Amino acid sequence: MGDRIAVGIIGASGYGGIQLVRLLLDHPYADITYLGGEGSAGRPYTELYPHLQGRVNLTVEPVDVAAIGDRTQVVFLSLPNGLALTLAPQLLARGCKVLDLSADYRFQNLKTYTQWYGTERDDAAIAAQAVYGLPELYRDRIAKSSLIGCPGCYPTASLLALAPLIKQGLIEPNTAIIDAKSGTSGGGRQGKVNLLLAEADNSVAAYNVARHRHTPEIEAICSDLSGQSVLVQFTPHLIPMPRGILATVYATLRDPGLVREDLITIYQAFYRHSPWVSILPPGIYPQTKWAWGTNACFIGIEVDERTGRVIVMSAIDNLMKGQAAQAIQCLNIMMGWPETLGLPQVAFYP
Amino acid sequence: MGDRIAVGIIGASGYGGIQLVRLLLDHPYADITYLGGEGSAGRPYTELYPHLQGRVNLTVEPVDVAAIGDRTQVVFLSLPNGLALTLAPQLLARGCKVLDLSADYRFQNLKTYTQWYGTERDDAAIAAQAVYGLPELYRDRIAKSSLIGCPGCYPTASLLALAPLIKQGLIEPNTAIIDAKSGTSGGGRQGKVNLLLAEADNSVAAYNVARHRHTPEIEAICSDLSGQSVLVQFTPHLIPMPRGILATVYATLRDPGLVREDLITIYQAFYRHSPWVSILPPGIYPQTKWAWGTNACFIGIEVDERTGRVIVMSAIDNLMKGQAAQAIQCLNIMMGWPETLGLPQVAFYP
Amino acid sequence: MGDRIAVGIIGASGYGGIQLVRLLLDHPYADITYLGGEGSAGRPYTELYPHLQGRVNLTVEPVDVAAIGDRTQVVFLSLPNGLALTLAPQLLARGCKVLDLSADYRFQNLKTYTQWYGTERDDAAIAAQAVYGLPELYRDRIAKSSLIGCPGCYPTASLLALAPLIKQGLIEPNTAIIDAKSGTSGGGRQGKVNLLLAEADNSVAAYNVARHRHTPEIEAICSDLSGQSVLVQFTPHLIPMPRGILATVYATLRDPGLVREDLITIYQAFYRHSPWVSILPPGIYPQTKWAWGTNACFIGIEVDERTGRVIVMSAIDNLMKGQAAQAIQCLNIMMGWPETLGLPQVAFYP
Amino acid sequence: MGDRIAVGIIGASGYGGIQLVRLLLDHPYADITYLGGEGSAGRPYTELYPHLQGRVNLTVEPVDVAAIGDRTQVVFLSLPNGLALTLAPQLLARGCKVLDLSADYRFQNLKTYTQWYGTERDDAAIAAQAVYGLPELYRDRIAKSSLIGCPGCYPTASLLALAPLIKQGLIEPNTAIIDAKSGTSGGGRQGKVNLLLAEADNSVAAYNVARHRHTPEIEAICSDLSGQSVLVQFTPHLIPMPRGILATVYATLRDPGLVREDLITIYQAFYRHSPWVSILPPGIYPQTKWAWGTNACFIGIEVDERTGRVIVMSAIDNLMKGQAAQAIQCLNIMMGWPETLGLPQVAFYP
Repeated sequence: MGDRIAVGIIGASGYGGIQLVRLLLDHPYADITYLGGEGSAGRPYTELYPHLQGRVNLTVEPVDVAAIGDRTQVVFLSLPNGLALTLAPQLLARGCKVLDLSADYRFQNLKTYTQWYGTERDDAAIAAQAVYGLPELYRDRIAKSSLIGCPGCYPTASLLALAPLIKQGLIEPNTAIIDAKSGTSGGGRQGKVNLLLAEADNSVAAYNVARHRHTPEIEAICSDLSGQSVLVQFTPHLIPMPRGILATVYATLRDPGLVREDLITIYQAFYRHSPWVSILPPGIYPQTKWAWGTNACFIGIEVDERTGRVIVMSAIDNLMKGQAAQAIQCLNIMMGWPETLGLPQVAFYP
Repeated sequence: MGDRIAVGIIGASGYGGIQLVRLLLDHPYADITYLGGEGSAGRPYTELYPHLQGRVNLTVEPVDVAAIGDRTQVVFLSLPNGLALTLAPQLLARGCKVLDLSADYRFQNLKTYTQWYGTERDDAAIAAQAVYGLPELYRDRIAKSSLIGCPGCYPTASLLALAPLIKQGLIEPNTAIIDAKSGTSGGGRQGKVNLLLAEADNSVAAYNVARHRHTPEIEAICSDLSGQSVLVQFTPHLIPMPRGILATVYATLRDPGLVREDLITIYQAFYRHSPWVSILPPGIYPQTKWAWGTNACFIGIEVDERTGRVIVMSAIDNLMKGQAAQAIQCLNIMMGWPETLGLPQVAFYP
Repeated sequence: MGDRIAVGIIGASGYGGIQLVRLLLDHPYADITYLGGEGSAGRPYTELYPHLQGRVNLTVEPVDVAAIGDRTQVVFLSLPNGLALTLAPQLLARGCKVLDLSADYRFQNLKTYTQWYGTERDDAAIAAQAVYGLPELYRDRIAKSSLIGCPGCYPTASLLALAPLIKQGLIEPNTAIIDAKSGTSGGGRQGKVNLLLAEADNSVAAYNVARHRHTPEIEAICSDLSGQSVLVQFTPHLIPMPRGILATVYATLRDPGLVREDLITIYQAFYRHSPWVSILPPGIYPQTKWAWGTNACFIGIEVDERTGRVIVMSAIDNLMKGQAAQAIQCLNIMMGWPETLGLPQVAFYP
Repeated sequence: MGDRIAVGIIGASGYGGIQLVRLLLDHPYADITYLGGEGSAGRPYTELYPHLQGRVNLTVEPVDVAAIGDRTQVVFLSLPNGLALTLAPQLLARGCKVLDLSADYRFQNLKTYTQWYGTERDDAAIAAQAVYGLPELYRDRIAKSSLIGCPGCYPTASLLALAPLIKQGLIEPNTAIIDAKSGTSGGGRQGKVNLLLAEADNSVAAYNVARHRHTPEIEAICSDLSGQSVLVQFTPHLIPMPRGILATVYATLRDPGLVREDLITIYQAFYRHSPWVSILPPGIYPQTKWAWGTNACFIGIEVDERTGRVIVMSAIDNLMKGQAAQAIQCLNIMMGWPETLGLPQVAFYP
């Protein structure tokens, strides 16, 4: 165990920011020493989130790299895509560890980033130092890195469902279809008409079909795991609830003799050192609310012998394991602390 | 019965506008001939509301008073407060009947309007022609008017609950307390953070306590009914659902001997010519969803003999009886048509 | 057009029953003359559904076949699986037309029924007269039949999405995957713990994976359309909303040169005589709430050129096009009336 | 601080039970050693709540008083009304401390209990030992008692709002009106039709108007605080959300010169030793979701100078401060531990 560390959160006003603040309040070794933001700079944080009255006394400050470098050892960046890549190099140069919640450091192949996100990149050297912050797959590399590109919410749920199948070559290449369902907080704390309760309640729809930016992220990691190029079909849907993602993953098994219980055993073995992943018993499928407010991922597995497909269902809280709590899980690993330190493990039900 | 009429809707892009469009599609004597708006001018209406594909072929047009005057006989104004008062006089001058959904023509006393809405008024002559568009109370005057100030959603639910008590002097003056609960569509089709599903779902809170602008509107009509100045306590709450208002009204009975069944009889008599108001039998309290998508108002009545109070609960759809459908009810009366013409009467349950 | 007809609804207390009652109130040629039920026999219908006060004066009666035969010309059966097959033959013998909302008459192959529903069948002659009540596919046969096996809610959404692909051989056999999302009213008006708001709200989960009873129903119709045996993957999910189904259908295209616009054209042609199906323009995907309270089906189509798959999204109201309104659409066809007669066409939004 | 204690939960299968289990998992000094139930006896607890897999290894046992006495030092009773009064005396006799979540020990006047709950009582001696488990009012007596009658959810929210007004004689007697809004989990984990998502979503209604059983409980404590008999008006409403209660309390001020800021100061002083009560700054009103999953109570205060009334809004989580977490707060006090020990303090937002 180490000493207490000073932590900064840049982009503190959004949903990623408030999750980090809330989680770090309960973390035994971290102190929040800097809350940075542009639009809300100068405002007491409790003005943005009144329920923190008496818990947080900080004021949001402008994003001043020198001050952040002076006053923090670890910085979480929770900003729109394209901003972290301008801040992270300066913070690293000042000795900070950086955990970025945007897409900026998720891609080893920067051409893929540019193709899907538009921004040209000339920072290959820095980007090459970044590790993809999915601890269940890259725990060892995270432990040694100072720059983490934290995964998207959909990729987290999707990859935890797919990894054992892909890594062990259990499915036919390119048959994976991910039908994902997300609560609306994934859209952020911005006043978008389609995310109004009046619009989004009582309704379900897909969006960005065949073109969601999380597709290349999932494919890149799958390709890394399998050693060959993998294509996936990914379709996100908006669900009338604030939090949670369920990824329902379909794929054709290579070996038609595999039964559900075989796969459950394989998954249990694959995740035996991963305290945050729960493989459910036969016939139990995950509810997203079981993960609400926690860093847990619940995985249920079914095999359809009629069709030769495996169906894997993976449930997380999109703002926790899908975003902020997973970033702190990474921090724990980077600091040599237990992976579960200071993170909520069990949801309140119902 | 009369001939078909040409109808314009100014402010067609918002929730009031889409309700009017939807309702008028089913109206046997009205044709929509003008959809006006500023921000959405030039866009096909089905771009704003794709589910109307194949039903509505109109494009939103800029607000051109001359064109509106030429092409319509009746105009609904569904605009932010303060705009109708600039348009209505011109439209009246061109021979249009005008039904305004904003607050501009709800007040006989323009000082009250200025005090609560800020805008100075010098149009007393025109404003004096306006009739408050609550047909259950002002049916005869609506029939003879060309300018209707349609009520707010909260005042509609509140006044239908209070009117029999106030009109007949059954309650102690100034004891009326209205605790109102509204779905979030009352906030309009604008991207406000507090109305996001992620924020408003799973939560209830009051807002504008002791200072909501619908308070003076309710008081003005109560005072008109009772012949003396009436104060009410009005508290609105936001409920995690898209549509619906429940007003729970408390007041101290003057005659402690009155029982629930007496009051039910009094209410039934009061509303015996009002096909849109349903007085519920003893022990049945209204669900807002019973009114969803209809112009109905359901009223349940209870007397607490221990405390000497009457409790009246009134449920409406805030966008229908609370806004657009009631405006068409007024139109029906203005045109000499049956009050129920073309309006949905029974909700789909559940 | 014909004369008015007398209609009975057996199983009137459930969600299917209340939809039928509500819809028939607005139907110009139908009168409800019999409401039958067991558990609620003897109770005024407005005790079950107080919002119908003043609209429905009927009392639920015991299920007496002779009385039903005397007093109705058309009977809707809205009962648990396994009961219609005992009632329908008697009602047909008395000259009634029968529309059954259960699974009893959906299968031409009764062995399939027995395999999935458990009940042995010895009524092949009667069952062979039944027509599957999906008018977009079997309009002509429905017109000539007296016994309709109305489709399940999931099969309706799924088959309307799949039929053009299957019928015209556009997809690789057995690649179809249907990921369906349903509101909770599909579970009926029974007090099941997993359907409580406290349990089902804030959560999404799959159920009956690889073994839902609607699978063989979808496969039977697909096989009928294609002329060869078809397997589909079908996974239902429960969504925190009362009504609505979205079916997201994935399949591999045979001709990789087909683009989205081609498929939209094919679908438009396929459904050109089907007034209830709306094919959406490119880039627009259906919201289930667009269909809320109507008999409409909205279909959006996407092609992923990277993966060679088509993705079709189909949205309906599970209790309307997915159940009761579609049954009335069938009735309209059986009687020679326009298919749209008396049915709601446009939802109230939001 | 003391040693670890062994805790039993009788009635573990319901919502009260699961909250207690979840909370005690995080409590540093308590071990769950007995989960008792009737209907679920013999089943592993994770069968009832699969998300606890890997966290709870206990099986539900029959309610065997001797075994409970042997294996526990503290027992929480989470049973329907009328059962605790048969169990508690036996458990007390075996040396257990008992915290009862039902109504059985909430009343000093057992006639009131019998009048509202029906059961005759002949256990006056035992009942007289019970202390009402609202620590903010009865902290000292709780510390010395072995039998706690934990408050109802509505009384907790209502009394925390009312207590400073009543205790200090700031309001006119009998003018208090409590309009309360509750999530549906208050109805318990039972399959009741009116609590189905399909029924309760999209709707708001009052229930048990003028006759809810929490009325005499509120009145008894108010009378105890004021030293004279107090009547209150209490109306509960069902809100489409799983958890949370907002009590909006109206009362007429005795001194019309009191302003909002005076009252905020009075409340802050009243609750200065109560870490779970947050008095909000002027103009901020509580959201129930701020308390979700915590033992917090948020209170907002407004004065309407026009009407002379104070409006106090109090928000809690009905299953936490309104039930299980408050019971553990009482346990902490009984054991001499800090009142906040092991209890969640800050909600996850949104």
